[in-house]
Amino acid sequence: MSALVLVHGFWHGSWCWGEVVPYTVAAGRLTVAVDMAGHGLYARRPRWFTEQPYDPETVTGEVSPVADVTLDDAAELLTEQIKRAGGGGPVTVVAHSAAGPVLTRVAQQTPELVAHAVYLTAYMPPSDVSAAAYTQIPEAADGLVGPLLKGDPAQTGALRLDFATDDAAYRQGLYEAFYGDVDRGLADAASGLLTPDSPGGIMMGTTTLTREGWGAVPRTYIVCTNDQALRPAVQEKFIAEADAAFPGNPTSVVRLDASHSPFFSMPGELAKILIPLGRNS
Amino acid sequence: MSALVLVHGFWHGSWCWGEVVPYTVAAGRLTVAVDMAGHGLYARRPRWFTEQPYDPETVTGEVSPVADVTLDDAAELLTEQIKRAGGGGPVTVVAHSAAGPVLTRVAQQTPELVAHAVYLTAYMPPSDVSAAAYTQIPEAADGLVGPLLKGDPAQTGALRLDFATDDAAYRQGLYEAFYGDVDRGLADAASGLLTPDSPGGIMMGTTTLTREGWGAVPRTYIVCTNDQALRPAVQEKFIAEADAAFPGNPTSVVRLDASHSPFFSMPGELAKILIPLGRNS
Repeated sequence: MSALVLVHGFWHGSWCWGEVVPYTVAAGRLTVAVDMAGHGLYARRPRWFTEQPYDPETVTGEVSPVADVTLDDAAELLTEQIKRAGGGGPVTVVAHSAAGPVLTRVAQQTPELVAHAVYLTAYMPPSDVSAAAYTQIPEAADGLVGPLLKGDPAQTGALRLDFATDDAAYRQGLYEAFYGDVDRGLADAASGLLTPDSPGGIMMGTTTLTREGWGAVPRTYIVCTNDQALRPAVQEKFIAEADAAFPGNPTSVVRLDASHSPFFSMPGELAKILIPLGRNS
Repeated sequence: MSALVLVHGFWHGSWCWGEVVPYTVAAGRLTVAVDMAGHGLYARRPRWFTEQPYDPETVTGEVSPVADVTLDDAAELLTEQIKRAGGGGPVTVVAHSAAGPVLTRVAQQTPELVAHAVYLTAYMPPSDVSAAAYTQIPEAADGLVGPLLKGDPAQTGALRLDFATDDAAYRQGLYEAFYGDVDRGLADAASGLLTPDSPGGIMMGTTTLTREGWGAVPRTYIVCTNDQALRPAVQEKFIAEADAAFPGNPTSVVRLDASHSPFFSMPGELAKILIPLGRNS
């Protein structure tokens, strides 16, 4: 039985799976929640976030300490984590949001390490297209994250959110973008753990996909139908394009009536979907 | 084989086990890192920590939002987490630092749920004595945490550390107290995830221990011989007192040449110790 490796999205860390893991473990699945490059135990926080006094004027300008982190780096780290947790055998990888392109790269490079690729409301761009390109398509226009971003990613090297501000409207915007169906206390606790800078390089990277690489790995897409960050129409577009490119290996699709964060709002239901995936590999 | 349930100490969260879990999972142990009451996804941060501008004058006075969290609450949460992860069967619980009294309470109340109790440089006070009492003994006098605490716990209800300050000497003090043998980058990343207020009530609670309760559960103590937070002499005192009280069930003792945070500085060595514990239960 392959282990489950859970990879969070931008600004989050391994901690965001805390409500899910007890369910998968109770079902007998070995489970590891890992930190993505530039996040969690690999995070590097910008000066504006840690220096006192906080000065909102400085938030937009600083070049990020994670500006140098690329999709290559993120894939290399995830590959190491998979090898360590799986002892060299295949694992089932669950990628949330911006972890999608990282999983795609790893599955393309080392399909033998990925028993099953699971995209949980994740970026799953086609061959040679960046995830970033999908933030600019018409289907993404009403997403709630874009207006909250601080600074120009081309200059800062980061997708930056201001988790230090006490501006009530901005904080409410963050809540609605990520945690609209999540208990407020839990959402507040989670907000205290977020990393302000996520590496833009991960979203900018591209991967050439082949039938023997990524196209050969069984995949499931979990659509979150009330997601205000990565809009459902964008998620459906990823599925349609993947199935058009690799018709011999169509995406298994599951839908959850959830926000961008079902690991918080419906961890038991999410676990129920994950538990059988790749179980027999 | 019992699952491993890993419980962090004060100010930390489930995230602090991120470097350990891949090893235990690779060895085939089902593993869950949980959040203690008042921490991680259950944290509540004080206003002085989140409001801008930060005002060091307000740090010492505010009554903590976790002032109402007791040892009873923490034990109740851990019992639920154990039941969920273990499916009602026994698990092996690893308690770090201030998670010690929580594990002790759970093992006393429901010894059938704890296959093996592992104290990792943890408070392991005897019957009817609080963990807090062991911060006042002569062996604890040269510990580095006490001088860093902010405010009077009797008034704030919390053990409070100022993770918001940019005072270089104070931040260096935090590093030396907790992470003296830890890579600086990792320690900095971890520092960004810490919760400033930990519930004083957990350290103040006491448990009456019986031979059929806590005294019947196999236990291992992992002494960290270079711990500047919970001093080795205090750790050895816990072991001596437990063995005197329950001579029929002596403590298995392992020693690691580590700071207070071997999960960061020597995760592989720590995992090697944990993997066989309670494996056959």
